[in-house]
Amino acid sequence: MEVRNRYVATRHHIEGAPTEADFEVREETARWSPDSGEVLVRNLYLSIDPYQLNRMKRSSASHLAVDGILPGQRIAAYAAGEVVASASPEYAEGDVVAGVLGWEDYTLFRPSPAVLMSKVDASFPLSHNISVLGTSGRTAYGGLFEVCKPARGEKVFVSAASGSVGSLVGQFAKLAGCYVVGCAGTKAKVDLLKDKLGFDDAFNYKEEPDLKSALKRYFPDGIDIYFENVGGEMLEAALANMNTYGRVAVSGVISEYTGAGRRAVPDLLEVIYKRITIRGFFAWDFLPKFAEFNAAIGEWVRQGKVQVIEDVSDGLESVPSAFAALFSGQNVGKKLVKLA
Amino acid sequence: MEVRNRYVATRHHIEGAPTEADFEVREETARWSPDSGEVLVRNLYLSIDPYQLNRMKRSSASHLAVDGILPGQRIAAYAAGEVVASASPEYAEGDVVAGVLGWEDYTLFRPSPAVLMSKVDASFPLSHNISVLGTSGRTAYGGLFEVCKPARGEKVFVSAASGSVGSLVGQFAKLAGCYVVGCAGTKAKVDLLKDKLGFDDAFNYKEEPDLKSALKRYFPDGIDIYFENVGGEMLEAALANMNTYGRVAVSGVISEYTGAGRRAVPDLLEVIYKRITIRGFFAWDFLPKFAEFNAAIGEWVRQGKVQVIEDVSDGLESVPSAFAALFSGQNVGKKLVKLA
Repeated sequence: MEVRNRYVATRHHIEGAPTEADFEVREETARWSPDSGEVLVRNLYLSIDPYQLNRMKRSSASHLAVDGILPGQRIAAYAAGEVVASASPEYAEGDVVAGVLGWEDYTLFRPSPAVLMSKVDASFPLSHNISVLGTSGRTAYGGLFEVCKPARGEKVFVSAASGSVGSLVGQFAKLAGCYVVGCAGTKAKVDLLKDKLGFDDAFNYKEEPDLKSALKRYFPDGIDIYFENVGGEMLEAALANMNTYGRVAVSGVISEYTGAGRRAVPDLLEVIYKRITIRGFFAWDFLPKFAEFNAAIGEWVRQGKVQVIEDVSDGLESVPSAFAALFSGQNVGKKLVKLA
Repeated sequence: MEVRNRYVATRHHIEGAPTEADFEVREETARWSPDSGEVLVRNLYLSIDPYQLNRMKRSSASHLAVDGILPGQRIAAYAAGEVVASASPEYAEGDVVAGVLGWEDYTLFRPSPAVLMSKVDASFPLSHNISVLGTSGRTAYGGLFEVCKPARGEKVFVSAASGSVGSLVGQFAKLAGCYVVGCAGTKAKVDLLKDKLGFDDAFNYKEEPDLKSALKRYFPDGIDIYFENVGGEMLEAALANMNTYGRVAVSGVISEYTGAGRRAVPDLLEVIYKRITIRGFFAWDFLPKFAEFNAAIGEWVRQGKVQVIEDVSDGLESVPSAFAALFSGQNVGKKLVKLA
């Protein structure tokens, strides 16, 4: 079987903030045969994530953990789709799956643990399988519960709190009995955090000339847990306001991905004297616990205890603008692209 | 009973590298009475430690954990001495003790857990009780085994490796079956590490124009554990050379205490993608394990498996110069002052 496949590719390595012009939609013929052992998927929802920018750089620490993206090549990405042909006994035509597919109309994959493929839970909207039940939910859950280990009553600060991961971390932390404050970059996002997502408080960091003072105001008793999504000055301000034995889970540092913001210069005296732990992590570090994570998260979503915020663009050609928007603060919640 | 007590005090808050002129020796009359509940100690050995500089600043994260030092006042410090009068049933005249005493001829203390006082183990030289069997040894042991949890064969990098803590960390890591490289600031110190302390390798960081490349040369297979004593560029270079799941124990950042060196700007992408943990700690965090630590360390010292390097100055009036020397790299091993 042959299908015309359109895929999004970079035109060149990207070192700063991405723009639509850095990408192009290319076409190829994807060939599947019954003796290939491969599965052909028509993609339905694509996950658009900031970390992909690091893969697009010529050189990055990212390349140690995930393959770098070469200009002109297909871009692997978490996605959901429908099996249209299968040469694997594990999958049948019509199965709907989620896992590592790509920013493209069709993906061929060979079943292996590396592609993290699973059949979707049809009792949820399909998009949820690559947002709250996908990498974003697992990042939020693993980062909060496995890395930060919150105790009831602890004070939790979440940056980029209206984003795909932050919006879940804050809600999970509330469910764990914590006091939660988030920051975001627009009034609408701040309102969302307070009015819809149940954060105890929230603020617009762009309106705060001094982040250290701002955090002192929002956390008069100090911060126990900082869920780090942005880096730069925000990390410095959080460390300055942390309590003894504070924990920082470094999930992402979006302000440092583009090189636009200045990099964090943490005060290591704070780290020593307050015995702070700063730990970088991935969702994949908790792979053996994904089923457990998803059972807990799924139950919360079913009970209406966790609101799922998805920001959906339409059509493969919208991938470049959707991706670029992540770095100018235009998305709210999980950014997805729905294919026709 | 009254004794004339000479004590070392700061003349003013100190913000940069300390010099002798920042200190003065003052005198007072110390008064002990049989109904005071207090113990009067004639000090014999004083511990001279870099962290005291942070206490001498007008403002520092240090003050959150340890009282700041006010100009003109006595300076609490770990020391060993002999009880000359006791109004406590726990101590008798003639007992030799180690714990929080002060940079002075005599110290009055009231028994409490806060002073961490214990009778010394007379089977060791007295000075060992405030070096390898005191805070330095406990910092090295706790930082390595409790924070970094080394596995046999792991690669360990120690900065300020000829210092009081570093010289022990390297030897402990060798005993744990690790590959150990240290750095120091003179050829004599580097030779000491390699020839006497059993480090697998060592280098003079002052002769390395590019610390990242230097570490790449010394650790072709990467660093698993970095025991951080200096901060600044060294931390950046260590992170750049760390392996996945690397651990950084932040024991001290002497280059950042004086504000002279530039502060570390860690690449947080390294932290995320290599899932690095950076943890600040104190020896005191492991207080419930001190007996266990000392039993292990003492046995190694007895068996000659750990060499104890002590750098002893004579007389209370030498405290200011001994302390200032810590920040110009003039000490080797644990800096102590012996009182007459």
